[in-house]
Amino acid sequence: MSAAALDLQSWLDLRCREVNAALDARLTASAAPAVILEAMRYPLVGGGKRLRPLLAIAAAEAVLERHGKALEAASALAMPAACALEMIHTYSLVHDDLPAMDNDTLRRGRPTAHVVFGEGLAILAGDGLLTEAFALLAREPDGVPGVPADTLARRKLQAVAVIAEAAGAAGMVGGQAIDLEAAAAGAAPLDAQGLRDMHARKTGALIRASVASGAVMAGAEDAELHAAVDYATQIGLAFQIVDDILDVEGASADLGKTAGKDAAAGKPTYPAFFGVEPSRRLAAECLGRALDALCQAGLGGQLAAIGHWVVTRRQ
Amino acid sequence: MSAAALDLQSWLDLRCREVNAALDARLTASAAPAVILEAMRYPLVGGGKRLRPLLAIAAAEAVLERHGKALEAASALAMPAACALEMIHTYSLVHDDLPAMDNDTLRRGRPTAHVVFGEGLAILAGDGLLTEAFALLAREPDGVPGVPADTLARRKLQAVAVIAEAAGAAGMVGGQAIDLEAAAAGAAPLDAQGLRDMHARKTGALIRASVASGAVMAGAEDAELHAAVDYATQIGLAFQIVDDILDVEGASADLGKTAGKDAAAGKPTYPAFFGVEPSRRLAAECLGRALDALCQAGLGGQLAAIGHWVVTRRQ
Repeated sequence: MSAAALDLQSWLDLRCREVNAALDARLTASAAPAVILEAMRYPLVGGGKRLRPLLAIAAAEAVLERHGKALEAASALAMPAACALEMIHTYSLVHDDLPAMDNDTLRRGRPTAHVVFGEGLAILAGDGLLTEAFALLAREPDGVPGVPADTLARRKLQAVAVIAEAAGAAGMVGGQAIDLEAAAAGAAPLDAQGLRDMHARKTGALIRASVASGAVMAGAEDAELHAAVDYATQIGLAFQIVDDILDVEGASADLGKTAGKDAAAGKPTYPAFFGVEPSRRLAAECLGRALDALCQAGLGGQLAAIGHWVVTRRQ
Repeated sequence: MSAAALDLQSWLDLRCREVNAALDARLTASAAPAVILEAMRYPLVGGGKRLRPLLAIAAAEAVLERHGKALEAASALAMPAACALEMIHTYSLVHDDLPAMDNDTLRRGRPTAHVVFGEGLAILAGDGLLTEAFALLAREPDGVPGVPADTLARRKLQAVAVIAEAAGAAGMVGGQAIDLEAAAAGAAPLDAQGLRDMHARKTGALIRASVASGAVMAGAEDAELHAAVDYATQIGLAFQIVDDILDVEGASADLGKTAGKDAAAGKPTYPAFFGVEPSRRLAAECLGRALDALCQAGLGGQLAAIGHWVVTRRQ
């Protein structure tokens, strides 16, 4: 393992532990009834790559570094957004797994939430996670040394807007609706453009919002924010292409979810349209464009390394 | 009909039309795919009393009047929150009506969303409405004459926090979880205190947040906000008591939803605990305390009249 890779791995491990601790702390501090808290905690603490929180924190670090500021502030600035993004991602998995949607019973190596808690409570747990995300974004951080209160308020409000728009009907929810409709009996299958639009909403939008909200919380200027979003658009697409390849090639034990399910369900995938090797090249091209965007804006830190990891990951 | 009552009715009609037009404009401006927009629009435009939006606007007017400011600003300041509150209320109805929850097929006099669009799309429509509410709160109002940008940003952020906390697991979602658990086979029925706690979360929290967010957007001072929340707490309780009485006494055609359902499901209600007439007195006492809170803080406008309407309404 190269030194650079070791550095990324150490960074990922450290930040992942911080994210997990912060998520746990939010739930522990909640005044919610035990019955709903337990159903929210189960899917949230059940592992996962924490890609979205890590992207938010890495983006905040990259902006702080570019501005010549101490990287230590990244966590104080971006951890609430990081936790909010993971809550929203988790809620989307809980709802997508429901019998009325993808009807999946295995997620992150464990039975899905509705299998454990029943459908009603799983729907409510998702609703609770989504709503708590916005409460968290509005409340925290309550103050950050060196950032005036009005500046912080404006950044937080922008983070709420960016994340809500990405997670909503024009973004993630809309993508899932397109996916659901395309899977309905008698529906016309998506073509390659339709597949790309569906993924740009369903997974791409929240990945873009992760990078954007981290950058916004760190005080990114317009050009930096623009470059960060360009990077995230490419990384989001690469992530989905690799996901499709792993679904074709992977085993359920490695993925922690049911492998081969998309293909079995007749869902369109990148390998199905283009073949496995061309799909790999497509992902590599996305990575190249992502790195270009970072380079031109002078954004460094871990964003590039995370991009490499997204394309080369085995699970 | 007295002049005062006529005034309230004219005010309600005018504001209701404004709220409906604003809700319609939000959806029309959305970049969401048609399939999800249609499923969000159906439950949102299907009528309803618009109690929460009206409370938000009335609270904003009361604060502006107390500060000697023109009431015309109430709409500019509070209409986004008013629309967000109605979206959140509507999402909660769509999810609560699902087969995995209350399994209701009639709402506001029409088939429920999952009957029309299927369960999957109904779940997503609820998710979309909830998320759009926060996007709207963060985006709008973009500027209000006489209110400095930083002041407006702080108010909007506080409105997001107040509404998200009320709608989330410690509030509305938690109340529905308690209700769901209490209805499960073999569960112990709620006692009177448990019933009150459940309703304080399930319906009370969002009614409090409606009044609070309207007051916050108009620039309420702490004492005014406190009094407004006291008023809302009492009105929320009265609203639920009257709802229970109407469920016992009403006909489905008047209510626009299935009457007698709570009693038939063995759900605890105020009339079941205390009898119909004592429940009516309880609602009247709530109204008295609500009016006291307004009076002591010098808050006038339509809040008192809305309180009277909540207690005397027939549907």
